[in-house]
This record gives sequence, structure tokens and C-alpha cells, in this order.
Amino acid sequence: MKAVQFSRFGAPDEVADVVDLPDPPAPGPGQALAEFLCAPINPADLLNLQGLYGVVPPLPSIGGLEGVGRVVAVGPGVANVRPGDRVLIGGGAWRERQVVPAAGLFPLPEGLPSEQLAMLTVNPLTARALLQEVDLAPGEFVIKNAANSGVGRSFFAFARRAGLRGIAVVRRPGLEDMLKSWGAEHVLVDGPDLAERVRAIVGDGRLRLGVDAVGGAATGRIAASLSPGGVVINYGVLSGEACHASPVDLIFRGVSLRGYWLLHWFQRTPQDQIAAAFADVIAMLGAGELTTPIDATYPLSRVRDALRHAAREGRGGKVLLVAEP
Amino acid sequence: MKAVQFSRFGAPDEVADVVDLPDPPAPGPGQALAEFLCAPINPADLLNLQGLYGVVPPLPSIGGLEGVGRVVAVGPGVANVRPGDRVLIGGGAWRERQVVPAAGLFPLPEGLPSEQLAMLTVNPLTARALLQEVDLAPGEFVIKNAANSGVGRSFFAFARRAGLRGIAVVRRPGLEDMLKSWGAEHVLVDGPDLAERVRAIVGDGRLRLGVDAVGGAATGRIAASLSPGGVVINYGVLSGEACHASPVDLIFRGVSLRGYWLLHWFQRTPQDQIAAAFADVIAMLGAGELTTPIDATYPLSRVRDALRHAAREGRGGKVLLVAEP
Repeated sequence: MKAVQFSRFGAPDEVADVVDLPDPPAPGPGQALAEFLCAPINPADLLNLQGLYGVVPPLPSIGGLEGVGRVVAVGPGVANVRPGDRVLIGGGAWRERQVVPAAGLFPLPEGLPSEQLAMLTVNPLTARALLQEVDLAPGEFVIKNAANSGVGRSFFAFARRAGLRGIAVVRRPGLEDMLKSWGAEHVLVDGPDLAERVRAIVGDGRLRLGVDAVGGAATGRIAASLSPGGVVINYGVLSGEACHASPVDLIFRGVSLRGYWLLHWFQRTPQDQIAAAFADVIAMLGAGELTTPIDATYPLSRVRDALRHAAREGRGGKVLLVAEP
Repeated sequence: MKAVQFSRFGAPDEVADVVDLPDPPAPGPGQALAEFLCAPINPADLLNLQGLYGVVPPLPSIGGLEGVGRVVAVGPGVANVRPGDRVLIGGGAWRERQVVPAAGLFPLPEGLPSEQLAMLTVNPLTARALLQEVDLAPGEFVIKNAANSGVGRSFFAFARRAGLRGIAVVRRPGLEDMLKSWGAEHVLVDGPDLAERVRAIVGDGRLRLGVDAVGGAATGRIAASLSPGGVVINYGVLSGEACHASPVDLIFRGVSLRGYWLLHWFQRTPQDQIAAAFADVIAMLGAGELTTPIDATYPLSRVRDALRHAAREGRGGKVLLVAEP
């Protein structure tokens, strides 16, 4: 079977090899055998291949932090899924077949496309969790840069549903209609005077949550936009630069800066709340609220083309890997 | 009477004017009249004259955020202080006489020099409060840059008393003996490999509190030095640059960054805890644990020379204003 493996860290499109691996054994007790359907290429995947992700994998390693597969066989004692069910796969999703513990699996509902389901862990779950990092009341503002990203897609949808007024910050014009359709109330192009423009919008209202996926001076502009006591949550580093924050905002305005990582969220969140979060995200997807634009799909064997495409600035949507035709 | 007044914001030694003001009226009910003895020039005073402090004063304004005066008269109903007592003064300390509300005053103990007592609010109280920002147990490490500053002087003394192992970070060599006498266990010169050197010291121990007064990349080096989940508290900006923090530390290592401001501490701390903090700091000063080196004293009328001296890099101690000879 084919798998996307990397044996060293480096430029993703240089280190990702398509290799032939032996088929996995039949699933044992409590296990399921899943066949690959599709998987997105997320920024976290690119970091993973560069050895820059939070958990550095042992080498060689198989790529793919999330995806969707179809159960083709189950081992003894497995009742929660059966052959034919589509399930979420992770931890090395980019291979044609893998044996996984059945305990964490659940059947994905019919009628929703695999491509959209494949993207529901890393981005929508993150967006939903980010909005819970600060205890917000309906009518408050929230702000997020890299607003046209995968997380942004879900962030503004969940914000609108919670009665929050979303301010979307992007790096180029022309995205206003799309972001408003996603749920943003205001769309601003980032720039040195961002904080002033945000304050003009917020007025006497409250803006206590800012979400940053860019780093560098962009983090500082989000910090400067917040109301006193506000919190900036950083979860990405599109600029490749360290986050900045002005001491004026930190010291005199009581703004703070912290990070968000999905893995920590899984570690600290009780199992029933994780299940509820997945159910919520799937329901929102079913309601058409989280559909993520897709720019292109590539078969596993063309992973290097897919990785180059995923690393490109100004894409119109996600790049996905799909099963060989 | 003489007072140091500024009518615009700018370079401190250009905007500070020595002016003649009418003597204040006799103290009314609940008031005391205090005569100036001395006051330090703190970095916060320099920011205040530049209009960069957290509370921008109305102009014209009188300088001096802390100091010591002597009560020369009290109004009706004042029992907590009497003429002859030395007291802490603030909010425009740099004038020969001022009428102040008596409610917040208490007599300073005899036997301690006014110059040292004049410096106990802004720096020692801050140092003590910073160490309480994270709930630490004896044996844990703490780290602070600008370690040879006024706050540093007290920080390592309070850390040692609490059984904490202080790591002092400075920008030049030659300060090791002084910092160890203050209470630091390790003294490191800042540099790109700071985090590696700190980790070699900390080993399996815990370093969850980092205090930063520099900003810029120095903040990021403190963040990178901390154990997972550690907190960087910024309270100053000696570099004049925004604080940096690597997304790797924020996202994957759960490090966070926030600010500390004495005014917020006063606002959120109950009155009895404020009184206890002052008593504690005075007791430590009496025990010889907080003596701050003094580089020079200048009479109020030479405030511009004093401000230039206070702004100089590599001073050997604080610059104070004292009463006219």
C-alpha cells in the first residue's frame, strides 16, 4: 500500500516520499482497519514535516494529522463502528490503510461530504475552543486575523451563533463578501492603524478576545485593539515571526497573551465534552455553516504537488489529499 | 516654594522646569502638610514626563511618583500622624511642600535613612508583588532580567527569603558578587543562548515565573527559559521595544505573557494586605535586606542634571532628589 512518509525534516515538498509499505495486519481485539478516503493539508502538517510542530515525531514518520477513512474490518469486541462506516482518522492519516484503536471512533453521519468531514477536527474544533477561552456575553465583539483561514471560516460562524460581533482582519482586500457570509460583522484589512479603526467600531462596547494566527507585529496590533483586560490567543505563525506585544498594552491596559494548542485542549477536556464538541461541529457542518472552500484535491501519490500548492500564498481554499483513482 | 513642573511632554531634562509656586494653604480637616525630604527618579518618572506612563497627567503637572516628607502641620481630626513624623508622599512629590489626605499616611520608623524609605513603594512593593503573581513553592526557580535594577535589588531578597532559587540576568559582566549578595543564586549575562544555559541550571527543577523589564527579544529569551506552563510578567521596557514571545513557547509549551502595574495592584489589593505589604517591606529594609545603592543626590533645583544622570546607562545606583541645602 502507498503511504506518505518522511525520513528527515525539511521543506515539506522535498522530504515527503511516497513509499510502498506492507499492508497492515488484520485488526486485533478492540481495533478497526480503516481505508483512506481523504485528508486536508493544514499548516500544522507543514510544520510537522519541518520538525517544527509541538510534538516532534520519531523518524521515519507518516504524515497527516487528520482525515476521514472508511472502516473495512473490525476486530473482536468492537461494537461502536462497523465495516462501511466513515470515521475520523489521525496520527499518520496519509496512508492507504491503517489499523486504529476503535475506542475513539464513531460513525460519521451520511449525507455530508468526506472532504468537509475530513477538516472538522483541526480547524472547527479549534475555532469553537478559542471562543471559549474567555467567558463572553452576547453582544460583545471578538477579533481574529488570518480571518480567511480554515479556523476563520468556523470562528465567525460560531461567533455569530453565540451572538458575538465578529471583526475579521485580513491581509488583502476583496474578501469582505465571503467573510460576511461566514458570519463576520466587520472586515478590515490589516495595517498600522488597525487598532484605531477597531476602536472606532467598538466604541463603548467590549472587545476582550483577540485571536492571532500571524505573529510578528500583527499580534501587537490585535493586542492594541482590545479593551483593557483583553486576552490575545495565538495559535499560528503565518509570518514566521515571534509575537509582539507592546508593554503599554501589557502593563497599563492589562492585556495578556497566551497560546492555544489543540493537543492541550484534548488533554485537559473531559471525554463527554469532547464528544459534545464533535457533535456540535458536525451539526453545524450539516446546517451548512462550516463549509470550507476547497482549492484543489490531489491523490496521495501526488503529495509533493499538493504540498507546494498548500504552501502557496493567496490560495482560495484548502488543499486535500484523496484516495488514488 | 520650589516645585518641579512640566507643561508639555518630551525629553525629561528638557520639559522639567523648576518653578516658584505659592505655598499651600494650612491643612484642612483630615489633611496634613508635608515638607519634602527626598524622592528617587524612577524609570516610571521618566515615562511620566514623556507622557508615556499609564495615567497621562493633565498639564501642567508636578513630577514625582514616590518620596518621603516630614509632617509639619495637621488639620483638625487627624490622629494617625503628627508634626515631626516622616511619611511617604506621592502624586507630585517633587515640591517643597504639599497638603495631602492624612488617611493613607503612617509614621515611618526612626533609624532608617529617608533616602531608602523614599524608594520603598515603586520598587520593593513591585518586587514583592511580582513574586506572588504565580503560586510558587520553596525550591522552585525564578528568573528576572535587568536584575541589577531597583526592582531586582528587592526581587532576589524576597525570593531568597521565600526559599526560591533566583536566576539573575544582566546585560554586562562584573555584577555577579553584587547580585549574589542581594540573594540571587545564579547570575547570567543575557545572550542568544540564554535559554539553554538556564535549562542546564534548572535541570529537572521548575522555573514557572519569569520577570522581564527589558522588552524586545529579551522577553522572548525569558519565555524560552521557562518550564512548560510558565508565566512571563513584563513590568518595564528598558529596550524601548515591544515584547517578543515565540509561538512555539506560547502554543506548544503553554507559556503566557502578561503585564504588571503597581497601580492595578493597589486597586485590586485589599487595604489590610497593602498595609501588611508596607510593614513587610519596611521590616526587610530594617534588616538590611533591601538597601538600594545610590549613585547621586541632587537638590530639587538641579532636577535637569538629576534627570540626565538618571537616564544614563550603566549607573551604579539610583539618583535621588533631596531638599535644598
